[in-house]
Order: sequence, then C-alpha cells, then structure tokens
Amino acid sequence: MRAPVALHGQITVQEVDEPEPGRGQVLVQSLACGICGSDLHALGTVGQADLPLVYGHEFCAEILDYGPSTDARFPAGTRVSSIPWATGPDGHELIGYSARFPGGFGPRMVLDVDRLIAVPRDLDPDHAALAEPLAVGLHAVNRARLEPDQASVVIGCGPIGLAVIAALVADGHGPVIASDFSAKRRALAEQLGAHVIVDPAERSPHDTWEQFGIGPGVSSPMLGDDEVVPRPVVFECVGVPGMLQGILEAIPRHGLIVVVGVCMVPDQIFPALATDREVTLEFVMAYTPSEFAESMRRVATGEVDVRPLVTHTVGLDGVADAFAELAAPDAHAKILVHP
Amino acid sequence: MRAPVALHGQITVQEVDEPEPGRGQVLVQSLACGICGSDLHALGTVGQADLPLVYGHEFCAEILDYGPSTDARFPAGTRVSSIPWATGPDGHELIGYSARFPGGFGPRMVLDVDRLIAVPRDLDPDHAALAEPLAVGLHAVNRARLEPDQASVVIGCGPIGLAVIAALVADGHGPVIASDFSAKRRALAEQLGAHVIVDPAERSPHDTWEQFGIGPGVSSPMLGDDEVVPRPVVFECVGVPGMLQGILEAIPRHGLIVVVGVCMVPDQIFPALATDREVTLEFVMAYTPSEFAESMRRVATGEVDVRPLVTHTVGLDGVADAFAELAAPDAHAKILVHP
Repeated sequence: MRAPVALHGQITVQEVDEPEPGRGQVLVQSLACGICGSDLHALGTVGQADLPLVYGHEFCAEILDYGPSTDARFPAGTRVSSIPWATGPDGHELIGYSARFPGGFGPRMVLDVDRLIAVPRDLDPDHAALAEPLAVGLHAVNRARLEPDQASVVIGCGPIGLAVIAALVADGHGPVIASDFSAKRRALAEQLGAHVIVDPAERSPHDTWEQFGIGPGVSSPMLGDDEVVPRPVVFECVGVPGMLQGILEAIPRHGLIVVVGVCMVPDQIFPALATDREVTLEFVMAYTPSEFAESMRRVATGEVDVRPLVTHTVGLDGVADAFAELAAPDAHAKILVHP
Repeated sequence: MRAPVALHGQITVQEVDEPEPGRGQVLVQSLACGICGSDLHALGTVGQADLPLVYGHEFCAEILDYGPSTDARFPAGTRVSSIPWATGPDGHELIGYSARFPGGFGPRMVLDVDRLIAVPRDLDPDHAALAEPLAVGLHAVNRARLEPDQASVVIGCGPIGLAVIAALVADGHGPVIASDFSAKRRALAEQLGAHVIVDPAERSPHDTWEQFGIGPGVSSPMLGDDEVVPRPVVFECVGVPGMLQGILEAIPRHGLIVVVGVCMVPDQIFPALATDREVTLEFVMAYTPSEFAESMRRVATGEVDVRPLVTHTVGLDGVADAFAELAAPDAHAKILVHP
C-alpha cells in the first residue's frame, strides 16, 4: 500500500507492506487520523531509531477483515476506534511508532479486537478521531480531582490545552482561565467554553486569581490552620523548559500544578519556591481505556463540540506539508489525514 | 542579658538588650532550645541582612512576667512552648530570625500569649523543645494522606527525616524504609521504629519496593485501568540539588514524593521522567498550630520517644562550638542549648 513514511526527519510517500491481522486482530481502513504533537516531536528527534514508520495514533477506521480464529464481534464495515496499542509476538506495541503496526496516516492498519470501541455511524470520522487527544484532557482533569467551583488556569491552548478546557467545561468546572500567546488559539479556547481568555503578552493569567477570591494565603502555615480551599489549579499544557518555574513564581499558596505538557529535556526549578507555597506538582500522561471510551461518548453525544478543532484536512500525499504547517502555532488546531 | 549573637557567619556571646513584653505578650526564661538546620543555613548564608540575631525557635521556656494589660491565663512559673512567631508593630515576625524577637539560645524571650501551649511540669524541657521539629514530620505525613499499610521510603535521617519516621510510626504506618549514608543516623532511625534500614552506599532504598508488593506498574495507563494502590511514597528529607532527580529515576509508577527537605538553590529535573510514571511531587513546609499542639501531646505522653534524639547539650557559651560540630552528620542528632 502507499503510505507516508517517516524516516530521518522526512516524510515521503512510499510503497510499504500491507499489514496482516493476526489472531485476535482486525484489518481496518483508516478514515481519518489526527496529527499529534508527539508525531512532530518524533519526526524532529535526532538519533531516532533508523526505522521507517507510518505515524498516526488518533484515528477513526472501518473494519475490512478479521485475523484467523478471531471473534467477529462487530460486522465488517463497522466504524471503530481503539487506544493506539496492538499486540504482537514481542508484546504490546504503540501503533504508529512501531515497524510492525503502521498508524492511521496510511490507508490500512491492524488493531486488537479486544481494544475496539464502536463509533456511531452518524458521527463524522474526523470528530471520532478527536476522541483520542480529548481523552488526554479528560485524564488530566480526572487526576486533578477538582471540587465544585474550583478555578483553573490553563497555560497553553494547543490541542492538549484545548482538550483540558473541553473536559473542564463538560464536567461543569469553572471558572476556566485560558492563556495563550496565539490569537487563533485563544479564539478556540473561547469557542470551547473557557470563561476568561488571557493574552500573556498583555497580563499574567495569575492576575486573575484574586478576581475569583483566591488570595496569596497566609505567609506561613504556622500562623493559622486555614487551608486554601478550594486550591488554585494550573494546567501546564506547553511542555518546554521554564514553564514550571514560571508557574511556581506566580501560583498562590497551596496551588496544584497539573503537568500535562511533556518536557522532553532537562528543566530547572527553584524548589524552595514550591516549598514556601506548599505547591503540588501532579504529572499526568495519556488516559485509561475507560477514559478513552468516555471521551468518545462525549464526542458522539456532542457534550464536547469538537467542530472548532478541525482546522484542515489532507490526503496522504499532503502529510509532509501538514507537518510543516503545524510548526506555526497560529495556523491550525488539528489537521486530519484522510488516507 | 548575655546571649549568643549570630552576625557575619560567626556566633559570639555578647551583651544584648533585655526583650520587653508588649501588650498580649509574656517574658519567658528559655530552659532548652534545639539547634535547627535552618540556623546552620542562616549562619552560612552569604549576604544575609547585617543584623545581629539571637537564633533559636525550638524551645521550652518558663513564664517570668506579663506585658501590660495581658490576660495572665497561665501563672508565672508555668512551662510553655509556642510556635516561633510573635507579633510586633510591623506584624508577625519569626522568633530567632528577628531583631525584635530574640530566640531561645538567649536566656530570655518574648512570646505571644495567644500562641502559648502549656508544657507538663514532669516533661523534660529538652524533650518539650523537640515538639517543634517533630511537628514538621507530622505535617509532612498529614499532607501525604497515607492509607493503611502504605509503604514509605524516607531519604535522609537527619532531624527532619527522623521526625517523619517518628510521625509515621506513631500513626501506625508501615513499612517504613529509612535510608541514610550515616551509620549514626541509621541507628537513630531504627531506634525510632523504622522497619527497614538501608545504607544507600550498599543498595538503593528503591530496591525494597518489590519486597512490599509494589512493582513498576504497567508501561502505559492506556493498557489498563489498574491504579497502583497503595501508591509508593518517598519522603525527601535532604534538600540538596539532585535529590529529586535521583528519586524520579527510581520511584515506581504513580509514586508520591513528599518534598520535606528545603533545597535553597536551583535544581534540575527531567520532567518527562515524572510524566512517564505519573508522579506527584508534594512540597510541604512547617506545620499548623494544631499539628504543633498534637506534636507536644505525643512527646508528653511518650507516644513518640524523643530520648534518642538528644545527643548533646551546651550552655550559651557552647553554641558556637555546637554549630561547628553539627557540620559533621555522623556526630549528632539534636544539640540542645540551655542558656
């Protein structure tokens, strides 16, 4: 099959082997697959393994065929999605980052039948493909264990920050203060229901805490048993060095920082600042299978309106250009590939 | 009065003004006062304010006199302690680090009557003075919100690590794995009831997780909804650069790091490691007034046996030498000053 192949920092469309479903697996046609920041990162990583890979782990697909002796619980033609892991002879592998399991930027993929969830026929495959990144936001919000009326600042309104905002709004949390240097992303945050939109070039998002009744707190816990309730919460959704320190310098006492952005290089913090304010850093990753299913349910019912997030679609020959366009944060939210 | 005065990195005994209790304050005689790591740090801090200070904030004292129009709720001669904050015309100040409020290394101090707690007459003042550092450990354990049978590793068995161990043991938590390079401190940890004692020069304290049924966990939350319950907990009680990164490299999935040690300089971490394991960093400081009172109760009842912690006592002329001796971690736990 023809597929966009990532190798040595380049994506080129090439002929690759057709994937073959094993026992307990299905062969599917990829209908729509989102380009993720992880894909951009993987392509740019120097010294990555010398393997040609077909990326794509945010997909909606249609069942074409079944592997040998496989429980055909959904008829061929059913639209499905799955967490992006499949099982091979060496164990679980991440679909789209495995030589054995090509991802959804190519036309055909193999999925584990036990991980499939059905996608309603009337749901646009582009929207179904967004359940995956939205599940990351749902997981982050679940891990924050928010109380009612707990104020949150979301730093960075790329796809992951927007997923956090969508989860906060769908769960009825607020006020949600969204902060991003990009006007386009701020507009998307507003469309998804963020209550206060901040351009950090004009003011700090942390200037809003007092507006929501959160002061700096006592200067020492020794001076009073008063906990800051509810705690101020910041979702860090950028993932570059310096972000954590910037938040530590500004967050009020007893603040909770949910670290959703993935900083792949060493970072410097001044721990005494975190001590002084008794801050919590909650690092979160991905989502659980049940959160993925819940995310799909929210997309299907329209509880989360994903339409603003789809800013562009391309065919498999357009993937390389789409990667280049995504380098500019003001141009796009999600680009979906229709292979 | 004669008191040991800290200035420009030196402690010398000098004549200083007698403190005078204001409205709502008492004048007390300091009976015993512990030397704290914060005192060592303050003396060694380059560029500290050019003020002569009488340190000492872990004290047991006896009431001598009352300020004007002050509610004499305890008779003169009552032994008391207090959180180390007193109220002056400029607001709350930290006793022992304020030019207005000399600390317990000098013979006399001024305390706020509203912050006093009575010390039982039959409690050794040396032991009562330990309620303050022990409250720091109690606070750290409270903030960790441990569940029954939750395993904890305590990294560093100086006075604060020992306070954490004492609080864990008094609350019935375990197993408690104590780790320190110093044989003396490991022996103290054992005397305070730690269940497993580790010399990190011989093996990593993190090698013990599996022994208590805590494995590395699934490689991704996407592969299963199984939370690691109970979470592995590490109390970081050293507070120097590199400690957090060392723990991040070794702690199992969903680990909780309670950061009790105060790192006063910038530190480097690799955030993606914390993301990968969904680690929580809980920074804690000091204690609340009710935790201080609870700590004193535990010392008074013997629920925490503080006797092993007192390794030396000095008069006010011995404070400078005691500071020098405390630079060697193998020599002492707590040195108490009897001014």
